[in-house]
Amino acid sequence: MTTHPFDQAIALEPQGADLFAGHTSEHYWNAISPFGGTTVATLLQAILLHPQRLGDPLAMTVNFAGPIRKGAFTVRAHPVRTSRSTQHWQMEIRQDGEAEPLITGTAVFAVRRDAWSDTESAMPNAVAPEALPRYASPANVPFLEMYDMRYVDCNPLAGGADSATQCWIGDVPSRRLDFASIAAHCDTFIPRLFVRKGGPTPIATISLTINFHVDGAALEKLEGHHTFAKAKANAFNGGYYDQEGQVWSRNGILLATTHQMVWYRDQSL
Amino acid sequence: MTTHPFDQAIALEPQGADLFAGHTSEHYWNAISPFGGTTVATLLQAILLHPQRLGDPLAMTVNFAGPIRKGAFTVRAHPVRTSRSTQHWQMEIRQDGEAEPLITGTAVFAVRRDAWSDTESAMPNAVAPEALPRYASPANVPFLEMYDMRYVDCNPLAGGADSATQCWIGDVPSRRLDFASIAAHCDTFIPRLFVRKGGPTPIATISLTINFHVDGAALEKLEGHHTFAKAKANAFNGGYYDQEGQVWSRNGILLATTHQMVWYRDQSL
Repeated sequence: MTTHPFDQAIALEPQGADLFAGHTSEHYWNAISPFGGTTVATLLQAILLHPQRLGDPLAMTVNFAGPIRKGAFTVRAHPVRTSRSTQHWQMEIRQDGEAEPLITGTAVFAVRRDAWSDTESAMPNAVAPEALPRYASPANVPFLEMYDMRYVDCNPLAGGADSATQCWIGDVPSRRLDFASIAAHCDTFIPRLFVRKGGPTPIATISLTINFHVDGAALEKLEGHHTFAKAKANAFNGGYYDQEGQVWSRNGILLATTHQMVWYRDQSL
Repeated sequence: MTTHPFDQAIALEPQGADLFAGHTSEHYWNAISPFGGTTVATLLQAILLHPQRLGDPLAMTVNFAGPIRKGAFTVRAHPVRTSRSTQHWQMEIRQDGEAEPLITGTAVFAVRRDAWSDTESAMPNAVAPEALPRYASPANVPFLEMYDMRYVDCNPLAGGADSATQCWIGDVPSRRLDFASIAAHCDTFIPRLFVRKGGPTPIATISLTINFHVDGAALEKLEGHHTFAKAKANAFNGGYYDQEGQVWSRNGILLATTHQMVWYRDQSL
């Protein structure tokens, strides 16, 4: 059995005392640094591997302070405070030769329990992914080969006044969903500015937050290897825009909601 | 001229080397710890006061790891990495006698510039706040006296299958909006679980993120001292639910979008 390239990309070697050694992946490379989704997933993986970890991911925020270069990096994941049912973490990624962290983050893990529960945000009706064409992005970066994106509502690069899209997301090759891959899926949606402008423009995620709505036991019951995602922007203003997304399993379970702020350069000025 | 109680609540005394001394406010006290909105605003205020600060708030996440007790506290706000147009921060709040931080957070500040801009999320049509009654909360906690909340769409405690609400928010006494007060407004909405259950139940915010959509220059052009906010939950599951909100100025400028994860106890079990 060979290891999936995603598992290789987020693989970490424990170095003791909250530290883990990792290495960037050629497969999940973006234009000038790694695909942000694998960076988020790698930070999550450090906590999942940590011997003091309590429960499952509840919320995480990752800040992209500087570009990770190709090669080795060090993850620090530190449990700041643990209560009976929640655990708070601080994370960083550093590389040799850099005095300051390239990535910072925080996370909350939690133990869910029996309680009145209800999901208000239902998955939209959608054609099955098998009935849709795989999206061929005009952006020529390696990580896009690792995701099978199928947009259900439109050509996402048609341009127009509305940045909303809906799509199926699958790992290539197909891979069972887990917290790390769900976190990475949260950063795969085509950038909202591309949707509005009808093509690629220079952008970079600055800060990304994910709220998880399921625990590990619920992940065992998921059907299929795809997620279904809706995303939209609230505002583009002065070189920064936001993206809000919702991610469901194929059988309609809300897995995560996600929000990011993105830097952009407007080439029309 | 007397200082507004909100400015007293978030007042900080520089202690050198990223440290600031603060004190909890009787006015903005919640049930067992300070109103989370003032805690968020205090962390923001530390960065706004910091001599190395670049630009205006773009994104911030605050994690509520333990309850702040009445009395003095110390804020640490550290600039992790600064680029030409963005600056990344790590923040903590500690109190004497606690080995671990009670609050952790990260923030990104940024300098906006001329660029193609567009707001997709328009403010809903709403009756003026003067034509609506002030909401009288059944929750008897001090900080609610400091906010004039006026719900436009419904009795927020009617119960039902939809947690969405829309309301005007004003400081008491009336106060000009700034980044700190906008951040605090993001945590004033009636908890989504109260809306669903038709009354108060035990809840606590665990992690709160705010994305800001305006810079300081735009704040100068705001009309009125109210904000208008929409909020909803995506899911309540196993003792944790989320809240998504959008906050506009009275003249319809999108100021911030905000997302939080909340712990709850279900008293019906």
